[in-house]
Amino acid sequence: MSQFGPDYVRAIAPYQAGKPISEVAREFGLDEANIVKLASNENPFGVPESAKAAMAAAAAELGRYPDANGFELKAALAKRYDVPADWITLGNGSNDILEIAAHAFVQKGQAVVYSQYSFAVYALATQGVGARGIVVPAKNYGHDLDAMADAIDADTRLVYIANPNNPTGTFISAAEIEAFLAKVPASVVVVLDEAYNEYLEPKDQFESTQWVRKFPNLIVSRTFSKAYGLAGLRVGFAIAQPAVTDLMNRIRQPFNVNSLAQAAAIAALNDKAFLQKGFENNRAGYQQLTQAFEELGLEYVPSYGNFVLVKVGDDDDAGARVNVALLKQGVIVRPVGAYGLPQWLRISIGLPEENARFVEALKRALDTTSASAPS
Amino acid sequence: MSQFGPDYVRAIAPYQAGKPISEVAREFGLDEANIVKLASNENPFGVPESAKAAMAAAAAELGRYPDANGFELKAALAKRYDVPADWITLGNGSNDILEIAAHAFVQKGQAVVYSQYSFAVYALATQGVGARGIVVPAKNYGHDLDAMADAIDADTRLVYIANPNNPTGTFISAAEIEAFLAKVPASVVVVLDEAYNEYLEPKDQFESTQWVRKFPNLIVSRTFSKAYGLAGLRVGFAIAQPAVTDLMNRIRQPFNVNSLAQAAAIAALNDKAFLQKGFENNRAGYQQLTQAFEELGLEYVPSYGNFVLVKVGDDDDAGARVNVALLKQGVIVRPVGAYGLPQWLRISIGLPEENARFVEALKRALDTTSASAPS
Repeated sequence: MSQFGPDYVRAIAPYQAGKPISEVAREFGLDEANIVKLASNENPFGVPESAKAAMAAAAAELGRYPDANGFELKAALAKRYDVPADWITLGNGSNDILEIAAHAFVQKGQAVVYSQYSFAVYALATQGVGARGIVVPAKNYGHDLDAMADAIDADTRLVYIANPNNPTGTFISAAEIEAFLAKVPASVVVVLDEAYNEYLEPKDQFESTQWVRKFPNLIVSRTFSKAYGLAGLRVGFAIAQPAVTDLMNRIRQPFNVNSLAQAAAIAALNDKAFLQKGFENNRAGYQQLTQAFEELGLEYVPSYGNFVLVKVGDDDDAGARVNVALLKQGVIVRPVGAYGLPQWLRISIGLPEENARFVEALKRALDTTSASAPS
Repeated sequence: MSQFGPDYVRAIAPYQAGKPISEVAREFGLDEANIVKLASNENPFGVPESAKAAMAAAAAELGRYPDANGFELKAALAKRYDVPADWITLGNGSNDILEIAAHAFVQKGQAVVYSQYSFAVYALATQGVGARGIVVPAKNYGHDLDAMADAIDADTRLVYIANPNNPTGTFISAAEIEAFLAKVPASVVVVLDEAYNEYLEPKDQFESTQWVRKFPNLIVSRTFSKAYGLAGLRVGFAIAQPAVTDLMNRIRQPFNVNSLAQAAAIAALNDKAFLQKGFENNRAGYQQLTQAFEELGLEYVPSYGNFVLVKVGDDDDAGARVNVALLKQGVIVRPVGAYGLPQWLRISIGLPEENARFVEALKRALDTTSASAPS
């Protein structure tokens, strides 16, 4: 037992990231070039060419500190989302936004509400400030907003909502969220984490970034790590009214977003062709994966993101067992036992050929690992 | 008054970064190409070529999340500093290390000890966790380690020491630091912030990274933002024993260091020619600046870093006044009024021609702004 640090820090179980390709290659003695990674909900097309060009132009000044105020990126976001620039907080990925919100609005002994099966960082950020996590049981693997509203107690200072939710892919309609926001006490901040927003069908899209005008306690969080293809660069942002934004920026590390990320994000933000290509690939890949799951008789949760949660067995070792069988075949997906879903795996939607490699590997994995496989 | 957030967050005054060149150009209607920035202690040679090549090689995978465990960079650092890889914590700049230490080891109501005139982030990180800052008066603009040891009280969980110190440039010898560490209670963590270590003359260098073997409560913090020329990329690191490192990594955001920064840092770490060139330029630039200050009859603090603190007037508006006069001439330096040094400016050491531009601008600024200028 360490003599250092508060009890609540010592109690944190660190985040388990998707295994990098290089690590799987080392562990399983595989060739990196033959490994398919569908584990971290990245964009299979990688970085857009527009962003690469912007990075090249910004590279000359990389010995300088980044612009601590992110003037140009905030101006681009302000224009794109029709909000003033001082309503924007930049983050080192939206992970940073989630952490900043906890540090800015919650102290030890207070409470944070979030859903069962929602993003692991909500619990980590809550634990990191010594607060109590109020975990509301999920409904159909998604958020039960009525129960979440009821769960807000006198200690609660923050609520995290993921829409679509990771790792389950569930979606909440605009009407449901607005009704929820209307019920939340004015002193409780709500982070609406929309990391996967750009993958929504047009009919499901709504202007959540405009809700911040109506709700002074709302933070809308977005990222460039998913649809925009910039996961390796680390850039996300929050939109909220100035009172909330001002406090977030007191906690934000001044140089949290590096120079190349700022430049690349501006370019990616305006690259509609890249977004559209990714959207269409995702829609087709979703059909490809879910059709395979249906043929295999596997239950899955209908997903609104760029990933699908699929049940690979009925016993609580199923996820881990099938995961190892996939790794041995050079296919990396995400086990979600730590989310309380030990019978499931989360599969990021990749390129058609990557999805096919996964499906073939899954069939072999189920054949070789299932206790009840047909002889 | 906002209804959100703890009192201690609302009381934070955000960090004032050095003005970016683009911002000064906008504000003063200047051409960016004619602006000299000596404000943020950056390496005037910018990013080493070796790091650029490493970044180009890493760019293909930038759509992927960074390696959350920093395997290759930690392996390179472990080899370079002769410590196990699990003694290393990676940071989004060493700013992140300083913040992580506060969050990992200090909670609301506890205390942190640091020196007057030391780096602003020590106070910010302390305030950010709701802790009490115990600010120990400086001695000759540097740390008074005897007084700091005496200032440690029952609530103290963390001490920050900067060596060399920013913004004053003062230095503490190995013997003094070892004697201090021997006096610190075992449950109090000491962060030894050595952001400017690489600018020390060989005779002043010592193997502080090996002290962590002897002191289980010591964290040595280093950065790639200064001598290594990677300020825009954001990468720093800490070395400490596993018990301390483990807690830091529970607080660390999993993807805090972007992929390009990891790749560039490995290359820069081994680029001895680049370090040597920067060291020699810095030594010559220090002579150039301090000789000019002596000719102008200006007091300065002898510096062990890549910057010099110089007194530009006897009244408490002097720093701000001369700073504006310099900005109008397209020369950006750092006013340090927020550090309680309103009569002083901090000048980063640049290329010979940049230093000369500054000296000429300073002469004009003193002529035009001084109340006692000769007629």
